[in-house]
Amino acid sequence: MDPIQHASLTLDPAGMSLQPGQGLAQQIHAQLKDKILHGALAASARLPTTRELALALQVSRNTVVRAYEALISEGFVVGRAGSGCFVAEIAKLSQPAAGKLPSPERGAAAPHTDLWARLQSFEPAPTVGLQARAFRHGLPALDLFPHALWSRLQARFWREQSRSALWHPHPNSQSQSQSQSQSQQRKAVSLSYGEPAGLPRLRELIAAYLSHSRGLQCGADQVIITAGSQQAIAMAALALTQRGDRVGMESPGYRAAAAALGLSGAKVVPVPLDSQGLRTGALQALGRLAMVYTTPSHQYPTGVAMSLQRRLELLDWAEREQAWILEDDYDGEYRFKGVPLAPLATLAAQASGNNRQRTLYIGSFSKLLFPGLRLGYLVAPAAWLPTLAKLRGVLDRQSSTADQVVMADFMAEGHFLRHVRRMRRAALERRDTFLSAWAQDLSPSLPAELRALSLQPIDAGLQAFWPLPSRALEARLVAAAAAVGIELGGLSLVGGLPAHSQEAGLVFGFASVPPAEIRRALKLLVQAWRPLWG
Amino acid sequence: MDPIQHASLTLDPAGMSLQPGQGLAQQIHAQLKDKILHGALAASARLPTTRELALALQVSRNTVVRAYEALISEGFVVGRAGSGCFVAEIAKLSQPAAGKLPSPERGAAAPHTDLWARLQSFEPAPTVGLQARAFRHGLPALDLFPHALWSRLQARFWREQSRSALWHPHPNSQSQSQSQSQSQQRKAVSLSYGEPAGLPRLRELIAAYLSHSRGLQCGADQVIITAGSQQAIAMAALALTQRGDRVGMESPGYRAAAAALGLSGAKVVPVPLDSQGLRTGALQALGRLAMVYTTPSHQYPTGVAMSLQRRLELLDWAEREQAWILEDDYDGEYRFKGVPLAPLATLAAQASGNNRQRTLYIGSFSKLLFPGLRLGYLVAPAAWLPTLAKLRGVLDRQSSTADQVVMADFMAEGHFLRHVRRMRRAALERRDTFLSAWAQDLSPSLPAELRALSLQPIDAGLQAFWPLPSRALEARLVAAAAAVGIELGGLSLVGGLPAHSQEAGLVFGFASVPPAEIRRALKLLVQAWRPLWG
Repeated sequence: MDPIQHASLTLDPAGMSLQPGQGLAQQIHAQLKDKILHGALAASARLPTTRELALALQVSRNTVVRAYEALISEGFVVGRAGSGCFVAEIAKLSQPAAGKLPSPERGAAAPHTDLWARLQSFEPAPTVGLQARAFRHGLPALDLFPHALWSRLQARFWREQSRSALWHPHPNSQSQSQSQSQSQQRKAVSLSYGEPAGLPRLRELIAAYLSHSRGLQCGADQVIITAGSQQAIAMAALALTQRGDRVGMESPGYRAAAAALGLSGAKVVPVPLDSQGLRTGALQALGRLAMVYTTPSHQYPTGVAMSLQRRLELLDWAEREQAWILEDDYDGEYRFKGVPLAPLATLAAQASGNNRQRTLYIGSFSKLLFPGLRLGYLVAPAAWLPTLAKLRGVLDRQSSTADQVVMADFMAEGHFLRHVRRMRRAALERRDTFLSAWAQDLSPSLPAELRALSLQPIDAGLQAFWPLPSRALEARLVAAAAAVGIELGGLSLVGGLPAHSQEAGLVFGFASVPPAEIRRALKLLVQAWRPLWG
Repeated sequence: MDPIQHASLTLDPAGMSLQPGQGLAQQIHAQLKDKILHGALAASARLPTTRELALALQVSRNTVVRAYEALISEGFVVGRAGSGCFVAEIAKLSQPAAGKLPSPERGAAAPHTDLWARLQSFEPAPTVGLQARAFRHGLPALDLFPHALWSRLQARFWREQSRSALWHPHPNSQSQSQSQSQSQQRKAVSLSYGEPAGLPRLRELIAAYLSHSRGLQCGADQVIITAGSQQAIAMAALALTQRGDRVGMESPGYRAAAAALGLSGAKVVPVPLDSQGLRTGALQALGRLAMVYTTPSHQYPTGVAMSLQRRLELLDWAEREQAWILEDDYDGEYRFKGVPLAPLATLAAQASGNNRQRTLYIGSFSKLLFPGLRLGYLVAPAAWLPTLAKLRGVLDRQSSTADQVVMADFMAEGHFLRHVRRMRRAALERRDTFLSAWAQDLSPSLPAELRALSLQPIDAGLQAFWPLPSRALEARLVAAAAAVGIELGGLSLVGGLPAHSQEAGLVFGFASVPPAEIRRALKLLVQAWRPLWG
């Protein structure tokens, strides 16, 4: 291959080597760009004609044309009608000085922010994985989810989308759209952006559900849809706290909540627990707290329900201190004894009149439908909603429109309440299976000192908690279980502010495991642990 | 109704009035709770038996039993076997002092944080609405979305979910799951939690797409799935900046981006633009900036493409200043002249060797599929991914599993590239229709001084920009258009840092409007504006 014979050419195609196969134009483009960027082709240099270069490189002329077009499009090359293509006049980048060549470490230099540093020490609970298994916790009875029904509701959404012309000729006045009937409005939900606060119909249905089924009187104007409870916690932390503030949180507690509570730079401090729940008496000694995060219905991960006395004391404390309470009712529907406990937020309204709203309430569909759905909600004073909606808009704009429509249909057509009842019954059956298999098989196999440590009573929720005397024992039990494919939530991994609590214990998620598997897994655990008792 | 005759009773059922209809148990429960909370029923007082109260209230005994059970469950009442129910001993809440009764304002006292205050002054662009209409901007050709295909892919996901037993017996060793074939892995995606960084298969497909089609060489280990580009901006701002930092942003620019860039407390400062894009020469005078946000492919909202010279200067500046560049390539696929411009991130790698990664790249499926989907991505140094994934996990855990699976199938089966080509062709056709109708109908109807203000050339993107001499004229044109049902993006509403820029102009979104409607709407606009020329 000869250098192209042309006085003003500086391009030696011999230096260009093309790999056979696809992307010849891209290769030519990239190599020419490289030469221009690094000075091998000087400004104003004339490029060979497309015919010349095609001949030299033995490619089709069209290939070279495409490469040149890309270079022109990007500004590396200027085409002058009738006289060919020339390298553009561009200032060269300052070259890194010798010895200061960028190293991979330098390239990925870590950001300098405090949040970045704090995230380093955050270790999320290892609950992520493709398959449910005994005894992964935090999951409901996913095997009972009505796939076919959900799929039908989704298909209907898409049929309505394609039927209702997506294009509506502009009306000559705004009034026309206001006179649309509700059913037309429903169909008119488009694929475009929606309200950051959430689909109005879904917010109404959630408010009605909370009022009728959970005893929390609220209006749609107090409900904002979130991407699960995690986003609700993050939004409350960002909106209500900032650097210099201190936020209290039950310890042991939900580790990802602790990380979210610190998003705005607030310091998260542990509040101790006992068998009545959060120890309100310990709050005063912690100094000024801007907010307290709590899971009163069923404490995560220990399962304690906060006593009425403590609830009233917590509300009283918040009023005196002008602090906020962030109530995460992540599994409040799963109450096996009596009725589901009314939320703190309800008690606050009843105890003090409706006007004192110091409690923000968080709910989620993750533990009722499935976690992959990413729909939850935050209930807050109506006057705050516009600002919270702006925050949602700034964080990620809105939740998926289709998911919100399907969820609203699922609720409006009665499937939701039926499913909640079915899930509660399943969790109850699985709890009873777990307790009886524990008493029959596992407990008798334990050495006497461990047999004496009974399971935390399971009046509610999706998991059992077994307190242990030491983290060393906890680690050995978790490892022996893992060796036979059983996942246990060791408290050192799943709960508590990092490096705070030394309490130990195991979390057993039973609700996602069919009864036969519960029995089988506990039998397997008996064998796996036996060698430890020596 | 007589007071119940019993010495130790303090409950007078005559004071209880029940509304007919549903929820009798709830009414009894709420009224008794109220009496207990407010001292009308003292601690240790004995309640009437369920039979007595049922008789007095003329309701079924079962109704009263349910109310009592709820009170016991919540701790307001204690049941003693054989001797009845008694009001529990609970400490009373401190009552607000007289004259300090909570007012509605007090109840909804606004949070005190800086972010809360900043959100007050953030006015999101009014692009939210149920229906597409001429000339709402920021939307692609939603009328061409393949509803039926998307719906089929969703239905397949749910079929696979129900077919693949959701419950997998625990294997006796971990190795079994590692030997699963890819197709089995695909089916095993469950409804449970997934990886915060995103579905691995989708991340691989995006990396391949960016490498092959957008000229951005990157691996799946550099791609994190986000809830649209908005979340990617918010995550970069939270991770890379903090209070005390200053962040530069093109002005006029994307208003919701400005709000997101300020999430961590950094001050957002405007960087001026001209016909070459962001004025890199103006950066030095702005002092130390931790990051610059830019839309180089097609500046939002003016449509300017950043020149090669400016791109190189911006990269050079970032390297010298050790600053980050946040490149939002929100509509980079819509390039009508030549090839789509290679991202800044690509140029950075080519100009300086692969190791200097000061450019973070943001892409979105909102402008290619539909905004309601909420899927986008952030490309960052691989070493950062674990921390960015933690941040995602803390913010909202993950994107919807089902949406990610369906999007991955849509890409893997070739639908995505076909759809991108179809959308680009449609946008080109609609641009040409817009330009010809503008030249034929609208431009001739304008007074001479406005006719002289030509549209910004539309080499790319979904919208046209028409610069205007004043905000007063802009407001009059927007209002006259709105009166005939046509939506125009006035620069005062859609772009720029709040209260900064006084530049004026109109944004016309043409890509979501079918050609016939474009012509019709521009004719309508001619009539609507005619009275203004007097």
